[in-house]
Amino acid sequence: MFFKVKTTEEVLELVQGFQPVGEETVSLDRAFGRVLSRDIVSLEDLPGFPRTSVDGYAIRAKDSFGATESLPALLEIVGEVRMGQVPAVTVAAGQAVRISTGGMVPKGADGVVMVEYCHLMDQTTLEVSRAISPQENVIQADDDFKKGAPVLQRGWRLRSQDVGVLAGLGVTEITVHRVPRVAIISTGDEVIPVHEKPRPGQVRDINTYTLSAFCAKKGAEPVPHGLCRDDYEQLKNILLKGLETADTVWISGGSSVGTRDLTLKVFESIEGTEMLVHGISISPGKPTIIARKGATAIFGLPGHTASAMVVAEVFLAPFLARLGGERIFGEKTENKVAAKLSRNIESAGGRDDFIRVKLIRKDGTWFAEPIFGKSGLISTLVEADGLLRIDRNTEGLYQGQEVEVMRFKEA
Amino acid sequence: MFFKVKTTEEVLELVQGFQPVGEETVSLDRAFGRVLSRDIVSLEDLPGFPRTSVDGYAIRAKDSFGATESLPALLEIVGEVRMGQVPAVTVAAGQAVRISTGGMVPKGADGVVMVEYCHLMDQTTLEVSRAISPQENVIQADDDFKKGAPVLQRGWRLRSQDVGVLAGLGVTEITVHRVPRVAIISTGDEVIPVHEKPRPGQVRDINTYTLSAFCAKKGAEPVPHGLCRDDYEQLKNILLKGLETADTVWISGGSSVGTRDLTLKVFESIEGTEMLVHGISISPGKPTIIARKGATAIFGLPGHTASAMVVAEVFLAPFLARLGGERIFGEKTENKVAAKLSRNIESAGGRDDFIRVKLIRKDGTWFAEPIFGKSGLISTLVEADGLLRIDRNTEGLYQGQEVEVMRFKEA
Repeated sequence: MFFKVKTTEEVLELVQGFQPVGEETVSLDRAFGRVLSRDIVSLEDLPGFPRTSVDGYAIRAKDSFGATESLPALLEIVGEVRMGQVPAVTVAAGQAVRISTGGMVPKGADGVVMVEYCHLMDQTTLEVSRAISPQENVIQADDDFKKGAPVLQRGWRLRSQDVGVLAGLGVTEITVHRVPRVAIISTGDEVIPVHEKPRPGQVRDINTYTLSAFCAKKGAEPVPHGLCRDDYEQLKNILLKGLETADTVWISGGSSVGTRDLTLKVFESIEGTEMLVHGISISPGKPTIIARKGATAIFGLPGHTASAMVVAEVFLAPFLARLGGERIFGEKTENKVAAKLSRNIESAGGRDDFIRVKLIRKDGTWFAEPIFGKSGLISTLVEADGLLRIDRNTEGLYQGQEVEVMRFKEA
Repeated sequence: MFFKVKTTEEVLELVQGFQPVGEETVSLDRAFGRVLSRDIVSLEDLPGFPRTSVDGYAIRAKDSFGATESLPALLEIVGEVRMGQVPAVTVAAGQAVRISTGGMVPKGADGVVMVEYCHLMDQTTLEVSRAISPQENVIQADDDFKKGAPVLQRGWRLRSQDVGVLAGLGVTEITVHRVPRVAIISTGDEVIPVHEKPRPGQVRDINTYTLSAFCAKKGAEPVPHGLCRDDYEQLKNILLKGLETADTVWISGGSSVGTRDLTLKVFESIEGTEMLVHGISISPGKPTIIARKGATAIFGLPGHTASAMVVAEVFLAPFLARLGGERIFGEKTENKVAAKLSRNIESAGGRDDFIRVKLIRKDGTWFAEPIFGKSGLISTLVEADGLLRIDRNTEGLYQGQEVEVMRFKEA
């Protein structure tokens, strides 16, 4: 067996080689968090009519020129704009029309003076104590979006305000990428269901839960396939089932050489399967296998929960983004925190180390505090806020050094 | 009417005065993102038995003392540990037992030497070329969690790894806070349903969509109550319905004085309603009303989508966290990005300004680029990555100044 150990960068590039899942149409009230599969352009001008952004009086701006508190302009009030309606009045020289925020600016007027600068002398006489410029406090019919203007690009994951803008544009249904489905399989003779009491030597199935929740937080749908013993036939059957039902299959297995070899044998037994990665030069997470069956990526993850989670954060997150059709627009702000390292860390070199760290705020600065503990402890994952990468060309990092922490996304 | 304009800090403190919603029990596979309502302690030792974290041979550590490549220790292989089972063999002086990662360390052994440092002379004779310390590569029975040890605290929102740890501990059901229900009402004579074509003067209902998606991203359940005209009876009825069905009611209305007064009149007409806030000294978002009816908070939000979103990010986010029972453990890493301001910003003073900014990465530094545009434009929200607060005691911020951006949470 040719041992294809790859670097972090090679694997990151490789997972971008898979194609995004297809499209589906959803109603706008289910669009939040979904990824656009097509560019959105505005089908109309927005707001579509000249609109004021303040409470006040619609006037001709030049009627206010030179107005001050000591020398106010005097205007005649000729009516009021009703919300949601085309104004019944127009504004001529020397005239003013009462208008509320969001109201349509009447014909003839080219600005709105705020109510704070207005004083009613009587029912029909207005004192204006401040000059306005033409178009002041007026949103033009196409100020927000012009018909045909680009609004959002395909590959963009919709935030709450984006959904709002689509509502404003009258988009009630939208074409998005399907939610990628992830088949999740836990293997190992020592692994038992969560509701069972382990006998000595046995452990409960953690990875189905961590990986399912990981999918949920990354906008994918986990499809747990249950437990599988270290048995060739059983593993092959469950893998084939996963390939049928999902867009990618994630098998987490014991990190032992025997289990890895079994997983590998099963991968290779399936016709048309190409081995892409057999080992990544990282720690933890080295014994990771990646294969391709047609368009589908199959991942063999370490059985250690902590190792599997590192592989998930580093490789499966960008893989799921790719699978879900998400494109990168600039650098993501979400998952990076600049911090100072709280102590020295040594590193073996020749591999990228991913160190669990706690983020601590002191005097306005974030400090990254490495969490050390025996390999394979899951309790360290609960303490950690994120991961710190120590590059394989580095011998370690120093206390006080500026580092960038990959923050675990909060739920 | 006594005009209770409050500061940002006063309102933030005030929303903490509401009580969290009650509890419910959910199965573990639905626990991700939920907030614990009770402390979790470990009901057993984890892993529960001595377990190795490597592939290799279980031995007595002192049998390896002094071993080197040129002078290896010779040991007799007396058996193998099967995964998930109590070892059938024990390890005596001079003996070794084959073991895989995750296997139970047999009696007699007090360490595991990695397979990389072992060489098979023949079927039963092992050369060990490196000394190990006692307990090396062994996870003790209670190394992860000791029975009775604290695991997670009430008020903690469960991340994927936390769910995994609960699985490891055999927790199949868990008591969490209910998901807070938010009644969402859009008011205004000019507001029409999204699927309708606006006539001049009319706008589509954006706020139901932005606020619903905002709830979703903050772990709350939106309960849209639809549109309401600027009509006393209609508004009162829909508000009473909201109070019956939800844990909090959010009414977004036109920002005009008339609409605000109407909303206020309706609030005050409901028996037992106490006005808490009538205006916040912020921009945008000043015309925000907060009332309390029994234990329920009622928010009257500005009708402008951009203003309503600022109020949501600044006040409704911590309010929902409180309502959902979330406690603050240290400072949240998620929503803060340290950046340099890309240009000067003036500020009026006397109020906190919340400026929409774009985050741009240049040479490893984040720059906050203010987005200027007419007040009331929704397109600026799509461009923005977050908000920058200019304190009311500040006259402005300078280009190059270090600022902290409240990042909009990515979906």
